[in-house]
Amino acid sequence: MRGIGSLPELRKDPIVGRWVIISTDRAKRPSDFAREVIQHRGGFCPFCYGNESKTPPEIQAYRPSQNGGPPLERDSPGWTVRVVPNKFPALGIEGVLNRQADGMFDKMNGIGAHEVIIETQDHNASLGTLPPKRIEDVLWTFRDRILDLRKDLRFKYILIFKNHGEAAGATLEHSHSQLIALPILPIYVVEEIEGAKQYYIYKERCVFCDIIRQESESGIRIVAENESFLTIAPYAPRFPFETWILPKEHESAFENSSSHTLENLAKALKVLLTRADRVLDNPPYNLVIHSSPIQDPINDHYHWHIEFMPKLTKTAGFEWGTGFYINPTPPEEAAKFLREASVEERPAAKEIPV
Amino acid sequence: MRGIGSLPELRKDPIVGRWVIISTDRAKRPSDFAREVIQHRGGFCPFCYGNESKTPPEIQAYRPSQNGGPPLERDSPGWTVRVVPNKFPALGIEGVLNRQADGMFDKMNGIGAHEVIIETQDHNASLGTLPPKRIEDVLWTFRDRILDLRKDLRFKYILIFKNHGEAAGATLEHSHSQLIALPILPIYVVEEIEGAKQYYIYKERCVFCDIIRQESESGIRIVAENESFLTIAPYAPRFPFETWILPKEHESAFENSSSHTLENLAKALKVLLTRADRVLDNPPYNLVIHSSPIQDPINDHYHWHIEFMPKLTKTAGFEWGTGFYINPTPPEEAAKFLREASVEERPAAKEIPV
Repeated sequence: MRGIGSLPELRKDPIVGRWVIISTDRAKRPSDFAREVIQHRGGFCPFCYGNESKTPPEIQAYRPSQNGGPPLERDSPGWTVRVVPNKFPALGIEGVLNRQADGMFDKMNGIGAHEVIIETQDHNASLGTLPPKRIEDVLWTFRDRILDLRKDLRFKYILIFKNHGEAAGATLEHSHSQLIALPILPIYVVEEIEGAKQYYIYKERCVFCDIIRQESESGIRIVAENESFLTIAPYAPRFPFETWILPKEHESAFENSSSHTLENLAKALKVLLTRADRVLDNPPYNLVIHSSPIQDPINDHYHWHIEFMPKLTKTAGFEWGTGFYINPTPPEEAAKFLREASVEERPAAKEIPV
Repeated sequence: MRGIGSLPELRKDPIVGRWVIISTDRAKRPSDFAREVIQHRGGFCPFCYGNESKTPPEIQAYRPSQNGGPPLERDSPGWTVRVVPNKFPALGIEGVLNRQADGMFDKMNGIGAHEVIIETQDHNASLGTLPPKRIEDVLWTFRDRILDLRKDLRFKYILIFKNHGEAAGATLEHSHSQLIALPILPIYVVEEIEGAKQYYIYKERCVFCDIIRQESESGIRIVAENESFLTIAPYAPRFPFETWILPKEHESAFENSSSHTLENLAKALKVLLTRADRVLDNPPYNLVIHSSPIQDPINDHYHWHIEFMPKLTKTAGFEWGTGFYINPTPPEEAAKFLREASVEERPAAKEIPV
């Protein structure tokens, strides 16, 4: 049995008030997790050059012109980042919400946008193996799509996320992110913004800015830092090796980022993904951009950021029943592993000239 | 592309206000899900007869005396249900909470109880293959443990849950449930109770009682029914084939159930698990008892129930970022599959005479 000195710790997330259980006496190291290996399954890929006709027609693409020649045609090869509608969308783009009762229940039409951002033409690359400049192109694409979609006033929130690896929910292995524009504010978003607002009312400071200040001073949960971003293991992480990337300057929405900021974000992402691949051996992961609702004005209480969650454990009955998480790796140890990992490149993904 | 007539539907859970996306035009049937098969891995099992010394000393057991002989000894074979402390507890039973600040953060000691309920001596049985009388013994054991642990006033909530199969988070294959007593109310429990309370304030009726009435009348989401329980697919399920078992008579806490009620609950569980095994081919699943906080008096707004969630899909970035769920199987179809499945027994699990 445990001694009293080695009790697990309950820690509270300061934004949403979620408690997590951190195991302190039998901390799991990176090699302790049984991971599903990411395998290339081969076969036909609709996201590769030459298969552009197998996706719905493209919404946008970066397609550098060749040696000063004429711009290349839509839905042809030669792109570096390409955005297409999801072939099997979770929501439909046409129609009206039509909120209505169904007896005592409530429903509405599933209106929204569901797009796929194909991050590279290279089937064997991943976001983390792309050069920083190409990661920047992906981030610019996210920004472009938000600025375009927020003109449609039916949409209240845009979620940009990435599922990497089958165990993290990816159904196609070619590196891509997804965008879903929603007609309502999702419950987690409401809770996060509400939590940040309550903190602001009480302290007259942004909770994320306070976290950045405290984490910078203590240093124990820092993974990396550059001019514009702080990468940390959060104080009360749900998952082992969960990591957040926060802009150091207060800003409520991702799409307000300057080109200089996105350049530094690309570098911060590159460092995190390279180190996570090194420490956790190319883990499956989910990556989510948390940002303000797209129709909201900028504000002082919410602070956009990225949450990176490697898929190392299984969510089970306890988590589904309580919203409590048991995390076997203290964030201080996770941060140390990631901080000390080399960022030296593995053999780089070969870029196909465009 | 989708036509307007086949838009997906957004549906709202009437208790917690969570919206889910229900795909209506490419509904997934049971055979469409790639399921992780539950395999018997063999090897040493600490929950089998003869290995009682490999678990921490038992807390309680049902151990029928043999042919009127003397009662059998603790931590020896001959039991039918056995409760032991979890050998690797998420929380420690000894000590005080000691709530404290950690800079701007909040923490406390991880105090709580973490017990394992071994549901049968038969390594090859599962809860669903046990005879109803033996399932009833398991339910009585849950009740006994709650009545014992609620005397400890450090504990505010008891969660009883079951992870069946590795994909649902089970680490040992021998059929068991778990109990975790917590020093604080978990965030999901607070939200569920708060949602039910708001409904009660507005309508002066229990939201669960209203659901039972409406579902009984429409019938389209009913899976099964007996004298005391209604088994339904909820209106806004997070997961394909998610199923709830609700007591028809209003009751806020599971542990207040009469022996007659538990007898009928055992029968309802047997029917649901048998049919789910039939329709979904022995799926991994999580099962959670939702009940009132243990120190609360009985009340008119909260209604205990069981939530059964087969593990057929993967939770990915969209769900983690929003709390929104995409469910590819409309509950009306899931209910129909489960309702029409035979409850005829497969070859029964062999019971070892005790």
